[in-house]
Amino acid sequence: MKLLVVGSVAYDSVETANGKVDRALGGSATFFAMASSLFAKTQIVAVVGDDFRPSDLQRLRDRDVDTTGIEQVPGQTFRWGGVYSRHFETRTTLFTELNVFANFKPKIGAVGAAADCVFLANIHPELQLSVLEQCHQPRFVALDTMNFWISGERPALERVLQRVDCVFVNDEEAYALSGVGNLALAAARIHAMGPQTVIIKRGEHGAALFHGGRAQILPAVILDSVIDPTGAGDSFAGGFMGYVAAQPRVDLKTLQAAMVIGTLTASYTVQGFSVDRLETLTLQDLAVRHEHLCGNLLPVALDWTQVGGFAPTHAVGVA
Amino acid sequence: MKLLVVGSVAYDSVETANGKVDRALGGSATFFAMASSLFAKTQIVAVVGDDFRPSDLQRLRDRDVDTTGIEQVPGQTFRWGGVYSRHFETRTTLFTELNVFANFKPKIGAVGAAADCVFLANIHPELQLSVLEQCHQPRFVALDTMNFWISGERPALERVLQRVDCVFVNDEEAYALSGVGNLALAAARIHAMGPQTVIIKRGEHGAALFHGGRAQILPAVILDSVIDPTGAGDSFAGGFMGYVAAQPRVDLKTLQAAMVIGTLTASYTVQGFSVDRLETLTLQDLAVRHEHLCGNLLPVALDWTQVGGFAPTHAVGVA
Repeated sequence: MKLLVVGSVAYDSVETANGKVDRALGGSATFFAMASSLFAKTQIVAVVGDDFRPSDLQRLRDRDVDTTGIEQVPGQTFRWGGVYSRHFETRTTLFTELNVFANFKPKIGAVGAAADCVFLANIHPELQLSVLEQCHQPRFVALDTMNFWISGERPALERVLQRVDCVFVNDEEAYALSGVGNLALAAARIHAMGPQTVIIKRGEHGAALFHGGRAQILPAVILDSVIDPTGAGDSFAGGFMGYVAAQPRVDLKTLQAAMVIGTLTASYTVQGFSVDRLETLTLQDLAVRHEHLCGNLLPVALDWTQVGGFAPTHAVGVA
Repeated sequence: MKLLVVGSVAYDSVETANGKVDRALGGSATFFAMASSLFAKTQIVAVVGDDFRPSDLQRLRDRDVDTTGIEQVPGQTFRWGGVYSRHFETRTTLFTELNVFANFKPKIGAVGAAADCVFLANIHPELQLSVLEQCHQPRFVALDTMNFWISGERPALERVLQRVDCVFVNDEEAYALSGVGNLALAAARIHAMGPQTVIIKRGEHGAALFHGGRAQILPAVILDSVIDPTGAGDSFAGGFMGYVAAQPRVDLKTLQAAMVIGTLTASYTVQGFSVDRLETLTLQDLAVRHEHLCGNLLPVALDWTQVGGFAPTHAVGVA
């Protein structure tokens, strides 16, 4: 197996200014795998209830996702409900019903344990650790987390951080994890905790990569329509990790290209509810959006001899 | 005169996690002119009280700013006080004392009226209109505004918008002004109101330029130290307009370079309280920061034949 993801498979009820969906296929592992499977064979390890629709398993299989690690047990599937403000500035959680997810104990089979790359989606850090203990020698491991674990389960989180190559967090999580309120300094502290690659997810503002002493930003694609931001971060990670898993080496160049692939992938995710847009996504779509993204980047070349400056003391010797 | 700015010259009391200053030189026209004067001779038209320190006028003159349009009248100078949250996510205004600014009626003298370029800082749209009526034929006019005028003085604001080339707003202001919650669509609506150039200021996330059917983003420089964000937007506009005023033509290329100059300028403004860092800024400093910015931009080149994709149906013909 190229890629293993351990996380949630859920039913989401989401309301935005553009409409609403109820019991729509969601969950971190779902969004991740729907994206990553475009690049690399992906297995999901997760748990669902006996209410989980066979047609939803089939949707994952139709994307070549290996669903043999999705355990079905008596009870209800994890459910989450939320509503977005009109311009997507804020998201309010209406309910979180862990249901069968409350007793999730990830069991990694022989196929998953041999995975090249592993993504530990946002679950309890002890569970993330237990996954790594079941895996052989994956060449690249990344994790997602959130403030709930950063503040409540820090010792376990610090243990798992020591064992991963890469962490995906947003600005707030980076500040909370590092204890400093500046992104560059926060990334340096997180590097010291273990992960040599720190990725800051900034939603509509894009994403930043901290690796090998470099800080690099990639804006998001400018879109004229956003339907539902749910899953943007997980599908960003999915595109990123799928690309990485498909490459022979994980170096700066690979990580930079993975940032681009993640950004392009997420730009489609938000243009439909649930995984609707993601499940028909093609590399051709990404190539089209890549041109769009390139056009969205402002060129930064400057001719310093022509910038002006009316006083001779302002002259500068940089060409 | 190359450039005329009409706005506030104020005393600010600011508190951040890094310290506090009281009655420090501030105001939109001050930050703007301290930045713009690095590129083009700039005149300020503003009003101050009899408490205004001669040394502060001198600081502006030391930057080659023409201060002859700063009227001094009996009373107190405009004062603003605010406090930033620890990581600068929010700013709370503690007080706003308009003082002599409450009766500000901009009087543009012969020198200012002949200005090549005009910046109407964030003042009442009727005052912005009165400035334009006093000016001859400036070749490029830009304005700043805020939600207070967008919601409270819309007819006057719409009249002045018809007469300007460029508007500087943040995301929220763009949504309020256009009535739509998507940046690309909002910019299109604002174009239809008059300004052919729309610049969205996004603070630590950079800025976006909408012009000639194109949408382009420039991230902010990644900084390892931010002292006080006050004046970032005004000095961004100052660097931008100063550069534009120094160029023979205002075309897309000029606007793109102006975005870079504005970004570099603002990156220094926030590294000191008040205008402390701005008043010693050199083109050499900007050139150094330009290299920093270039290093902060993630390259987006992709080899589509190498992105992976394990199934033949995923093949794509884009090189």
